[in-house]
Amino acid sequence: MKTVYSPAHAGHLPRLELSDGKLVPAVEIPARAEIVLRAVASAGLGDILAPAAIDDALLARVHAPDYLEFLAGFWAEWSAMERDWDALPLAWAVPGLRRVRPRDIDGRLSYYSFDAGTPLTAGTWNAARAGASVAATAAGLLADGEASAFALCRPPGHHAAGDFYGGYCFLNNAAIAAERLIERGAGRVAILDLDYHHGNGTQAIFYRRGDVFFSSLHADPRDEYPFFLGHADETGEGNGVGTTANYPLALGTDLPAYLQALDDALARIAAFGPDALVVSLGMDTYEHDPISKFKLKTADYPTIGARLAALKRPTLFVMEGGYAVDALGQNVVAVLSGFENG
Amino acid sequence: MKTVYSPAHAGHLPRLELSDGKLVPAVEIPARAEIVLRAVASAGLGDILAPAAIDDALLARVHAPDYLEFLAGFWAEWSAMERDWDALPLAWAVPGLRRVRPRDIDGRLSYYSFDAGTPLTAGTWNAARAGASVAATAAGLLADGEASAFALCRPPGHHAAGDFYGGYCFLNNAAIAAERLIERGAGRVAILDLDYHHGNGTQAIFYRRGDVFFSSLHADPRDEYPFFLGHADETGEGNGVGTTANYPLALGTDLPAYLQALDDALARIAAFGPDALVVSLGMDTYEHDPISKFKLKTADYPTIGARLAALKRPTLFVMEGGYAVDALGQNVVAVLSGFENG
Repeated sequence: MKTVYSPAHAGHLPRLELSDGKLVPAVEIPARAEIVLRAVASAGLGDILAPAAIDDALLARVHAPDYLEFLAGFWAEWSAMERDWDALPLAWAVPGLRRVRPRDIDGRLSYYSFDAGTPLTAGTWNAARAGASVAATAAGLLADGEASAFALCRPPGHHAAGDFYGGYCFLNNAAIAAERLIERGAGRVAILDLDYHHGNGTQAIFYRRGDVFFSSLHADPRDEYPFFLGHADETGEGNGVGTTANYPLALGTDLPAYLQALDDALARIAAFGPDALVVSLGMDTYEHDPISKFKLKTADYPTIGARLAALKRPTLFVMEGGYAVDALGQNVVAVLSGFENG
Repeated sequence: MKTVYSPAHAGHLPRLELSDGKLVPAVEIPARAEIVLRAVASAGLGDILAPAAIDDALLARVHAPDYLEFLAGFWAEWSAMERDWDALPLAWAVPGLRRVRPRDIDGRLSYYSFDAGTPLTAGTWNAARAGASVAATAAGLLADGEASAFALCRPPGHHAAGDFYGGYCFLNNAAIAAERLIERGAGRVAILDLDYHHGNGTQAIFYRRGDVFFSSLHADPRDEYPFFLGHADETGEGNGVGTTANYPLALGTDLPAYLQALDDALARIAAFGPDALVVSLGMDTYEHDPISKFKLKTADYPTIGARLAALKRPTLFVMEGGYAVDALGQNVVAVLSGFENG
């Protein structure tokens, strides 16, 4: 399995994030991607390729033009105000308020976000674009006939919706990959989100689409971030009725309970009959993840990879979360080698 | 003019708040109310009274039962998790997400708030209840026949909606005062919000009510917090059609421009024919306010007080914002003495 990677992710270097009411050292850091790169290299998973330049027309099929313009221009505006620290937004248009776009820069930060825990930094835009190009290039490998590929994206993408960021995510890499697959001829694409946190952005982007099936296994949003999406009763709307399938799982979920949900999701995906599968690969289901509460072990991940292989579809893995940095490389390799051997 | 005051506000002692992406020393601090108390005392404005005990039935006419229960029980839950720092929420149900109530405490913090700049502290609930009792007691003075009264509330209230907090506000003191006036016989009440920031909570609480007229002069929400309410096209709904009147003003507004809007608002209020007027008295319109951008001077405030007096209605002043602490006392006295002499 080939891996696509760009070192440009390292330009996104958040310092502090808001967590449980405190500013604490950021957990979504460059070392995450670097340790995964070393692990796939030393495991001999396959060639490691650089991405092609970003395709702006592809980005624009997933994200709103004004949102992309905001992200592209933000740091110049922010630094022109003599602010040299990472930006965090302040207020949100919850029900009872109106989401009307402000002129003020802090207002626009709020307008284009949904949480206060995602620092927007000097290097965020370039890193996010590089991550999107990694996803798009890896999707192209599948379209070229590869059976599988690994998009080693950073920052992650699945919390980013069409026009707002959050959850460490700015551009939705999995959605961009799915759009590239469709552009290159796939009639139907399934996205399976295995990150510990619900992929609210990906769900929202495809909620009314009949050609993209979105399924997610994640901590119950009643108990965990992002809190406000990911319930089982969200099943799609309009043309997308029946093409969303959420599996909110209890805190403490271990392999048997996880596999039960996974097998159900895979059966739903098989019934949908996709031409390709995109896996949003978050490794924060790991028992020692510092911000998560599932109980999966390193030895469990080959089993999960093998189940994905049994679907027998061209499969693209897109890196999402996972914050137990020391174990992140071995856990990713465990999934991918399980898939290869499955 | 009598003042109602409770020293219990001092129990709400936030340490740090999120502002422009940084944690900075909180500006909504006990010294604010204390300097105003000293100023009204030394100006000989009138007797200073303690409030009657809080009326829970009155609170429940403004705020949702589950919201009050959350605020009342929050600190016990938070401290049981061995968290001894001020709480800040993290994520919000913007459009594209669903406002479903989480079980998790951080999720409920998010559910019941709309910004990340309002610390919830050990003493918040008691202080907020004391503030509400100040407002209710002062409203009772009007109902007993006083021509005017000053509710020296802290924390402020006008950003708090029926079921969420934010903008340093937890219980909506002005709304509670209006409800007390109605309970005591007023058929119609007008609320005039003169804080620099739009009173989104008060507007939302009465948006569908025909018996309460809400008018606000404030910095244009395209330029200023709370960003997502306070536009001129918000005029009420249902039974409340035509009973909301917003005056979004440009940054840098000085007295002539301010009086033009004020006179228009007062004409609308006179036409409504209220039995009493509640003034949400924020003093952050002051030229030296550290977080605001209007240009009113201390010498301007008696003029504003006199315009309010010219309405010739029983008038309750309810303290809202104002963060130029050194000048806060003299500016409040300038409005109130201008009213008394008007």
